[in-house]
Amino acid sequence: MRGPPMTAARRFAISRPMKITKITDIVVPISSSIRNAFIDFSTMTASVVAIETDVIREGKPVTGFGFNSNGRYAPQGLLRERFIPRLKAAKDLEDARGFIDPAKAWAAMMQNEKPGGHGERSVAVGVLDMALWDAVAKAEGVPLWKLLADRYNGGKADETAWVYAAGGYYYPGEELKSLSDEMKRYLDLGYSTVKMKIGGVPLREDVARIETALKVVGGDGQKLCVDVNGRFDLQTALDYARAIAPLSLRWYEEPVDPLDYLLHAALASEYAGPIATGENLFSMQDARNLIRHGSLRADRDILQMDPALSYGLVEYLRTLAMLKQHGWSPRRCVPHGGHQFALNIATGLGLGGNESYPQVFAPFGGFADDTPVKDSRVKMPEIPGIGFEAKNALYAVMKPMMGA
Amino acid sequence: MRGPPMTAARRFAISRPMKITKITDIVVPISSSIRNAFIDFSTMTASVVAIETDVIREGKPVTGFGFNSNGRYAPQGLLRERFIPRLKAAKDLEDARGFIDPAKAWAAMMQNEKPGGHGERSVAVGVLDMALWDAVAKAEGVPLWKLLADRYNGGKADETAWVYAAGGYYYPGEELKSLSDEMKRYLDLGYSTVKMKIGGVPLREDVARIETALKVVGGDGQKLCVDVNGRFDLQTALDYARAIAPLSLRWYEEPVDPLDYLLHAALASEYAGPIATGENLFSMQDARNLIRHGSLRADRDILQMDPALSYGLVEYLRTLAMLKQHGWSPRRCVPHGGHQFALNIATGLGLGGNESYPQVFAPFGGFADDTPVKDSRVKMPEIPGIGFEAKNALYAVMKPMMGA
Repeated sequence: MRGPPMTAARRFAISRPMKITKITDIVVPISSSIRNAFIDFSTMTASVVAIETDVIREGKPVTGFGFNSNGRYAPQGLLRERFIPRLKAAKDLEDARGFIDPAKAWAAMMQNEKPGGHGERSVAVGVLDMALWDAVAKAEGVPLWKLLADRYNGGKADETAWVYAAGGYYYPGEELKSLSDEMKRYLDLGYSTVKMKIGGVPLREDVARIETALKVVGGDGQKLCVDVNGRFDLQTALDYARAIAPLSLRWYEEPVDPLDYLLHAALASEYAGPIATGENLFSMQDARNLIRHGSLRADRDILQMDPALSYGLVEYLRTLAMLKQHGWSPRRCVPHGGHQFALNIATGLGLGGNESYPQVFAPFGGFADDTPVKDSRVKMPEIPGIGFEAKNALYAVMKPMMGA
Repeated sequence: MRGPPMTAARRFAISRPMKITKITDIVVPISSSIRNAFIDFSTMTASVVAIETDVIREGKPVTGFGFNSNGRYAPQGLLRERFIPRLKAAKDLEDARGFIDPAKAWAAMMQNEKPGGHGERSVAVGVLDMALWDAVAKAEGVPLWKLLADRYNGGKADETAWVYAAGGYYYPGEELKSLSDEMKRYLDLGYSTVKMKIGGVPLREDVARIETALKVVGGDGQKLCVDVNGRFDLQTALDYARAIAPLSLRWYEEPVDPLDYLLHAALASEYAGPIATGENLFSMQDARNLIRHGSLRADRDILQMDPALSYGLVEYLRTLAMLKQHGWSPRRCVPHGGHQFALNIATGLGLGGNESYPQVFAPFGGFADDTPVKDSRVKMPEIPGIGFEAKNALYAVMKPMMGA
């Protein structure tokens, strides 16, 4: 654990309620030539938003940035039709100290939205929520991970966050050699745990691929995860479970449809190893249904809800509270998405870690530049906000939006 | 039941595969001054789409129309960003007889969409799916209800569909008199069953309102439904359940969050009367979870999934198949939305009926003009397609889109 929180004296206070002065959004490609067992990522896009405020730091207005992670698309229509206009029109968003209260902003964005149907709009709200937290942490003059630790975790932030390298793609024609090379690159980058796609070819071929990857990580199943992307029916999920059970893999990810809780329960009754899922559950209610009805096991299974796709951190805090109520530690959470927002949350709130995509989804994935990965762990920068300014390729996309 | 299906001779065949030639969309207000216990409808919008084809009938290209029903918003961004472009780019959509196969169109629209997160995009796909079915029925020269009965129901369509009048709003200041007047108007229009909002004021006041409405329908609880719009927690839902139990109401609608299956189960263990829900479940998977985990009762409860908001009829057919597998009759289904699309489905596939909004959401709700409601039942027109052309106020919105 790091030391006590920064003292109040090192932080900024503000003299009048912090206000939003401008919101802009752009759409950029988040493309990648890869495909998983379910979709092709080549047309994928991300919205990037900039929320400018009337708080001045270093002579410039504090501006928060947000974006959506991969797997869903840029929600530009939704942002412009409903969520940006509502956020702009909202009044009295400040907390007791005058900073914007993201929970109040959330309520303003979600007014006149009916319950249920948590998809797409959860991405639009998630993008704006990320930018609000970035702005608030910058206005307060602290890294987001520190702000979160102080507000919600008794001031205790982790020294480093566990990260793993997600990849392990298919290489038609030169399958095993290329997979092995890819996995070796991740080890060279400092990752000790890697993840590979399965479910895109027949079981026998996937087993050969898994054995190849396993050899790269020294035969230690705890250093290898496999990811189906929700494609299997029960029979196939069980066939694969039987094949991989002797390997003691780190986890078996999204084996079946993310909303088929009963199938998760059936699989968990047969497969003793850890199951990971949740990247396609976009609300506290959906995550709660997984916990209630999926028969997952609080001592081993992994929950991958991604705050950037799921109504942001305001909702993620509700999800963490729900998990606690059901006897689940935040350490069981390892968010999907590989972005710095989740990395701040992981460090500040004591999650189990965060996904990382060393090869794809640039410039949105990854960490601050010059942050070495050491034994699959990274340390967070000390700069205010989420830390986008310390990641040049990403900040090059964001910076032109300031004062635009 | 009506007689046998129209003979093949009365139908049109086509000589080459039916193609989409143009897709246009507009956004129109679907506003209403009402509010329910959850949201204000004054800013609500609907997308209307027109899908023009290369099939010529009466000298003009067959054009199908679709729109989203109330409760969610016009999905214009999603339509233009993803679903219209994919549908336009799709090839080989025809079925064995050369007509467009809506299931193939559905697969084309949903390519590169990940599983889970069923909201918003389900509305965009639903709007286009509605237009495709309208176009296909027009190309075939039959009403949609008849096409559906022939394809999926052994040629058996119902003579009429049961409909009920949804309304029963709050009238601050002149509560009971205005509510009573509203309910009387519905009876004058030919409805025998009416529905009213509850949950917007304290229980005691709602009970007075319920008693007032009950008096209008002659004291027969089977002619009155109450609708909470998902607002109650368990304690409040149980308090209301206890208060209304002696009245034997037709149904107690959306008492709790639509995704809180456990809460439905708890309520169903205490409340013996029919519970209705489902208007905010937008996929087969979500509906299946309600059936699996909600402990609803196949002999009395009501399922209100709305095809216009839920990926259209292609998905609704999957939902009906899932229900059958779980022992539920289609008669337990009474869709939300009050539109002619669901009315065709109800008539052609033998559902329990359809919602109707005599006072609000014009021009999208309701039936063909000059269709009398008699003892809460309506008869479908014999014109090809969904029947929009027989409803002047709605067709006035659609007609300018043709050839636009």
